Amino acid sequence: MKKILITGISGFVGGYFVDYLTSHYDTVEIHGISRSKPAWDFVNVKPELLNSHHFHLADLNDIPKIKSIIEEIQPDYILHLAAQSSVAESWKTPVFSFMNNTNIFLNIIDSVRLNDNGARVLSVGSSEQYGIVSEQDLPLTEDKPQCPANPYAVARVAQEQLARIYATGYGLDICCTRSFNHCGPGQTDHFVVSAIVKQFVKIAHGLQDPVIHIGNGAIVRDFIDVHDVVEAYQLLLTQGKRGEVYNICSGIGRSIHDIVTLLSDMYHIDVQVQEEQSQIRPIDNPRIVGSYQKIQRDLGWKPTIPFEQSLWSMYEYWDARMKGN
Amino acid sequence: MKKILITGISGFVGGYFVDYLTSHYDTVEIHGISRSKPAWDFVNVKPELLNSHHFHLADLNDIPKIKSIIEEIQPDYILHLAAQSSVAESWKTPVFSFMNNTNIFLNIIDSVRLNDNGARVLSVGSSEQYGIVSEQDLPLTEDKPQCPANPYAVARVAQEQLARIYATGYGLDICCTRSFNHCGPGQTDHFVVSAIVKQFVKIAHGLQDPVIHIGNGAIVRDFIDVHDVVEAYQLLLTQGKRGEVYNICSGIGRSIHDIVTLLSDMYHIDVQVQEEQSQIRPIDNPRIVGSYQKIQRDLGWKPTIPFEQSLWSMYEYWDARMKGN
Repeated sequence: MKKILITGISGFVGGYFVDYLTSHYDTVEIHGISRSKPAWDFVNVKPELLNSHHFHLADLNDIPKIKSIIEEIQPDYILHLAAQSSVAESWKTPVFSFMNNTNIFLNIIDSVRLNDNGARVLSVGSSEQYGIVSEQDLPLTEDKPQCPANPYAVARVAQEQLARIYATGYGLDICCTRSFNHCGPGQTDHFVVSAIVKQFVKIAHGLQDPVIHIGNGAIVRDFIDVHDVVEAYQLLLTQGKRGEVYNICSGIGRSIHDIVTLLSDMYHIDVQVQEEQSQIRPIDNPRIVGSYQKIQRDLGWKPTIPFEQSLWSMYEYWDARMKGN
Repeated sequence: MKKILITGISGFVGGYFVDYLTSHYDTVEIHGISRSKPAWDFVNVKPELLNSHHFHLADLNDIPKIKSIIEEIQPDYILHLAAQSSVAESWKTPVFSFMNNTNIFLNIIDSVRLNDNGARVLSVGSSEQYGIVSEQDLPLTEDKPQCPANPYAVARVAQEQLARIYATGYGLDICCTRSFNHCGPGQTDHFVVSAIVKQFVKIAHGLQDPVIHIGNGAIVRDFIDVHDVVEAYQLLLTQGKRGEVYNICSGIGRSIHDIVTLLSDMYHIDVQVQEEQSQIRPIDNPRIVGSYQKIQRDLGWKPTIPFEQSLWSMYEYWDARMKGN
């Protein structure tokens, strides 16, 4: 691995990926694009590692700027993490969500096409692409039909279809993921597991009544630790088959209620649960559980971190912040 | 029908639709948005009919402007014709094509959502959405899988998926078409039938050697006269089932070679055919033929104009222009 460009580098997965790279490679030249400078408080890598030479403050909607950055860097690899990845936000601001998923990706790959240096691209997609699925289709393999059920999911389906067209029609070297729900310390509380853990920590600190506020508690999702995710990304970036799509998941479905119960048991905190109407979405997929058979077969990857360990490390993260550390 | 807003009004179908409306309704208030003023030379309606009050010069990518136009007009109906509808162009300028298909549609429906006046929207899509299809799936019914094979087709699939999300998730009153290849007088020679007819006319006028230049002559498409298309749009706009998708097609597949042979026979002009490598696309769907069973069943529509008549009227159109009329 020589020169890599990471879009959305300042985000949650960006921090973990840079941490992974710097601890596994001595010579890699890391470039990052983001709308804001990294301020990771959840990984050991110092944001200063990315000096001004390697960090590019830019909006991926700014086509001429993105084109010139890619021409300047001539990256060997591009990891496209940048995304507006909240389903809830996509219902509130669908135009913004669409532009900051599909359009920004299209801007990247079209710049790669015009630059024509053969850069290898990993397009990060989402399990939300599957959408409304039949119970008999679970666990979801990559050949299952996609029936996206929210604006974010539509944007991700379009992204993957564009990746496929650019791979087959223009010969770009692109590989795609469908990444299932992430969790891990440092994830913002816009995402469900982090939001629930944070509430438990607040309750433990006496900062909240023992009531956990959630959306629809019955929905089942497949959660995967961010450390496992970055290992999968590194493998796919360097060895994933061109033009192929890979699920990244744990293979285990958990309801939101299950997660609350698990945390309640782990920390001996009795709570009540309150479903907030405002957090319930217009349409929702009752169960999304993936199969990681394909990536295991092709690259030998499988999840290694138990969900309880993810919860524990997220609890530690929020706990340290509540203590003002 | 009271107040209608037509996007892309200055285009080919826009002219025919305005002609249809003005000859069937006395009281309809027609508003149009386009990047350029109408200059139709193929319909009887006078462009002056759209005085400055009813014509809105705007780029549909200009979100605040589109929002304010819709708020000002408060349309009862919106016919969304605006599109960058050339597959060939989408391979050349994929970013522009995507924005001028998916994004402009999203801007329209999001403005309708925010304006919240219950406007009825007809979203015009394309047979290209079907993409690479199996022979046993022909003729294509609306429930067949979509496997888009070019940037334009991906953009149209995303448009329809957004329409579905806005209908089910936000309760918008949207109906969708998958319109098959149009033909008719006034269509530009960026589209295959018009390009071939124009070449025959040039040969007849001694302006071209008797060689017809085409792309891949073996591909089969389903061509439908623009007069039939506008009747279908009017029916769907007023009576199509909310949230549903309808094919608009002839049900008949013709290869590009078939069309050359037909014109050669009709006008007694012997020609050679030359397939131009530059016009052959990176990926192409060998056969796309539709079924109009659903729209016939729900609304009683069926195609009425024989293909030979479309060719004849297109020949007349180009012939008049060659004569300088």
